[in-house]
Amino acid sequence: MYPDPKSITRVTTIGAGPIGAGWAAHFLARGYDVAAYIHDPSERESFDAIVATAWVSLTALGLAEGASIKKLKIVCDLRNAAQDAEFIQESSPERLNLKQALYKELGEMVPPKVVIASSTSGLMMTDIQADCSTPERTVIGHPFNPPYLLPLVEIIGGKRTDPDAVAWARDFYEIAGKAPLVMKKEIPGFVATRLQEALWREALHMVANGEATPEDIDIALKNGPAPRMVVQGQCMAFHVACGAGGMATNLDQFGPALKWPWTRLEAPELTQELRNRMVDGCNEIAGGQHFEEMAAERDRKIVAVLNALKSDA
Amino acid sequence: MYPDPKSITRVTTIGAGPIGAGWAAHFLARGYDVAAYIHDPSERESFDAIVATAWVSLTALGLAEGASIKKLKIVCDLRNAAQDAEFIQESSPERLNLKQALYKELGEMVPPKVVIASSTSGLMMTDIQADCSTPERTVIGHPFNPPYLLPLVEIIGGKRTDPDAVAWARDFYEIAGKAPLVMKKEIPGFVATRLQEALWREALHMVANGEATPEDIDIALKNGPAPRMVVQGQCMAFHVACGAGGMATNLDQFGPALKWPWTRLEAPELTQELRNRMVDGCNEIAGGQHFEEMAAERDRKIVAVLNALKSDA
Repeated sequence: MYPDPKSITRVTTIGAGPIGAGWAAHFLARGYDVAAYIHDPSERESFDAIVATAWVSLTALGLAEGASIKKLKIVCDLRNAAQDAEFIQESSPERLNLKQALYKELGEMVPPKVVIASSTSGLMMTDIQADCSTPERTVIGHPFNPPYLLPLVEIIGGKRTDPDAVAWARDFYEIAGKAPLVMKKEIPGFVATRLQEALWREALHMVANGEATPEDIDIALKNGPAPRMVVQGQCMAFHVACGAGGMATNLDQFGPALKWPWTRLEAPELTQELRNRMVDGCNEIAGGQHFEEMAAERDRKIVAVLNALKSDA
Repeated sequence: MYPDPKSITRVTTIGAGPIGAGWAAHFLARGYDVAAYIHDPSERESFDAIVATAWVSLTALGLAEGASIKKLKIVCDLRNAAQDAEFIQESSPERLNLKQALYKELGEMVPPKVVIASSTSGLMMTDIQADCSTPERTVIGHPFNPPYLLPLVEIIGGKRTDPDAVAWARDFYEIAGKAPLVMKKEIPGFVATRLQEALWREALHMVANGEATPEDIDIALKNGPAPRMVVQGQCMAFHVACGAGGMATNLDQFGPALKWPWTRLEAPELTQELRNRMVDGCNEIAGGQHFEEMAAERDRKIVAVLNALKSDA
């Protein structure tokens, strides 16, 4: 029922803030025609400024063939913005009643084969789609700020979303140059923000207790975990650091340390089932690669990242 | 009393594991003469392999003038390894009784003007130095794995450590090409590992609850927070993302979200004092730079990082 995601050429974005304008810039850079709905003409100036800023980086990253900032059309009439859309990325303010009213309107205005994705970071699609007459094609497509640079998009439907719409969104985002992650469950904060938020709360605790300053927090992150995390996620970082034994060695050896007060967050019980999920998951990611091969790749990429940062400074 | 840290030319490392050997490689790359103590001749082979692996990356990062792998001397006699040391980096196994015995021996063997730093991630210097007759110069100098690549070194003394030794270690590590962070308090896990551990425990909770797989966790981190975190720590990321209002806007606007279940970790009470510490801290780091300037720098560096990763792949 949904069109081939490769065939999409026209995208409508909704919202004039950094997320909405950032998405518009991203889709333009990937070569799409973009109709950008902004609520009020007065938002035009700041919208244009965000797109212009983003365009500098997007050009440096490499534009798709045919990409042009001239393919942007800014409209203040929702029906006009939505009428030819083949995909809609909605980034309106984070208020549930506002989004519910918007999805009610879009649900009647936009043909049901057009997937509508919400950038919301804090609301659930089950709630957003409550008053929508065609909720099957509504999904969450949550980017990370700045959305024109960070590849992640977290995708999940609400209770009334068609799983095919979720799969379609995944495929479309990938074609559109993003790193899509289909979530298993509708959980508050999704995956990436939950991880970041755990770190952030620990940081606030440390500052509250006089254990570290904001500057200490940032020095620690930028020079410690971050240059590795951009190359290996935390699971593979531990898997590869433990040599031939991998994640199994990590959990068997450091499992007891999960009980240590190394953060205010209590760890889950390290059951056999959790252990197996972690070990099997890491082995799947590794896909048979030897740990030395993965460590060498990690090192090579960290060097590239550190050199890139150095030559920019 | 301590020598000028710029005058140091000879470093002794203790330990044949990835941390000990990684440190030896790092100091060699910075041009030092390194005496590496390994406990048993049988460890020689794996020690050499780690140094050889590290050397590839260190060369790609750029060696200091006069740096040579030939300046490495491997010794199995502790007194021999320590006798000419001008600085000692100890990375022996993480067992308190073993480290206590080692510091007792080193405390008598090594002149008291020589600073001895421990790579421990889990023990407190107050405990490690308990049986040492010259504890004033003993500090923790905790690296992040791999220590030859990640710049962070977290430094703190024990109850009997001379503050001058802590300051000396800070200066020395900086001269030796590291990013030193002097901690405010002896807290378990120090700063970077506490932050990483909070994130890690949230990840384990998600996997335990079937909310995400290890692969999901890693995709989320690598494509979401990490490319930004290597450029801006979490404090400045929020400060700059909130535009002219900075961290104050972040806390005033998103403060209520700290009560939301966006991780299993409960946030501290957002008191006026905590708010001020965060805001003042971020303003200090910003040092008067305009947020648009900082956002442009962030974007430029993220582009450099993403391009570096792309051209390596």
